Amino acid sequence: MACFITFEGIEGCGKTTQVRLLADLLASMGHAVTVTREPGGCAIADQVRAILLDAENRALVPLAELLLYAAARAQHVEEVIRPALAAGGIVICDRFTDATVAYQGYGRLLDLDLIDRLNRIATGGIAPDLTVLLDCPEETGLARAMERINSTAGAREERFEQESLRFHRAVRQGYLCLAEAEPHRFMVLDATRGIGETAAEIAGKILARIPKG
Amino acid sequence: MACFITFEGIEGCGKTTQVRLLADLLASMGHAVTVTREPGGCAIADQVRAILLDAENRALVPLAELLLYAAARAQHVEEVIRPALAAGGIVICDRFTDATVAYQGYGRLLDLDLIDRLNRIATGGIAPDLTVLLDCPEETGLARAMERINSTAGAREERFEQESLRFHRAVRQGYLCLAEAEPHRFMVLDATRGIGETAAEIAGKILARIPKG
Repeated sequence: MACFITFEGIEGCGKTTQVRLLADLLASMGHAVTVTREPGGCAIADQVRAILLDAENRALVPLAELLLYAAARAQHVEEVIRPALAAGGIVICDRFTDATVAYQGYGRLLDLDLIDRLNRIATGGIAPDLTVLLDCPEETGLARAMERINSTAGAREERFEQESLRFHRAVRQGYLCLAEAEPHRFMVLDATRGIGETAAEIAGKILARIPKG
Repeated sequence: MACFITFEGIEGCGKTTQVRLLADLLASMGHAVTVTREPGGCAIADQVRAILLDAENRALVPLAELLLYAAARAQHVEEVIRPALAAGGIVICDRFTDATVAYQGYGRLLDLDLIDRLNRIATGGIAPDLTVLLDCPEETGLARAMERINSTAGAREERFEQESLRFHRAVRQGYLCLAEAEPHRFMVLDATRGIGETAAEIAGKILARIPKG
């Protein structure tokens, strides 16, 4: 049965690894799993992602950034997420609308009501059934993210990692506010632990909540 | 004194030529003139323009297209138009918000109210003082546009020209509706005439309306 799961959290929280582990587990159980990510997830949205994450685009104003996220999301929902759910599959997405609220709203202080309206326009009503929030202190996340950057020669996707700790603290608080407002949808997990321990907790909680096929 | 002039019309109506001629005239009279265009007009918006006009991007859904236009516009307004007007200059822009209403609203039948809301979000309240609508039958415009494409080897900015005559007829009607609704802002000109004749009429009408410095 169709299920839309999103993973959220600040840079370096371990989302990408956990998305892969959960997808492998669900696929091994026979589910049709689509793994995707935002911004991006399809060719056109990836072109928008390249603009958003290019460290050269320092002139990008917050409102244009917000609208670019909405554009990439509209394409991604129509081209990837909606068809996969319509076919009865499980969609696991690395970041979705909550990331826009946390980063642009709590991080960049853009109007939360405007973000909410744009999220609703872009998704056409598609919303996650379950959201895994991998929570960790901003110092921990950024230290991990910086390690990753330093080990990737020539990486240019670092615009966000260049933001201050204060920014990432605000983003983390934004995520926690969202989780508090929708406790049924959100699972907040301690992401300071090892990969295996976190993966096991995610697996247990998700398997208990996924609709039977 | 600051003045924001936009040029609108279907493909092949002669906008780009007339924008250049008017800009040269106003500059020769001592005005500080900024010539710009949409989509695009600055480096980041040009990156968005490249996505919008790439004929390879056939999968682009109408809602994502609309949001990309809004994103490019938000960046363009903040980076180029607002500062130039704030400095007291004349800004001449080849296409602006009316193009989105005509193309996406009347052409692609997207919700006019949604377009209007996104236009207001993207512009932050900046609106043209004067709009020159170069009106011509869609057959005339498309014939001119096709000539231009055929003479430009390897041009890929042809996604719109591939649209049907019916689409461009709807766009033209959209422009005429907009002009009828705001007769004080719009000047509707017959663009089937020669370049010089049209340029002379534009010059006469604009000079009569531009605020004295």
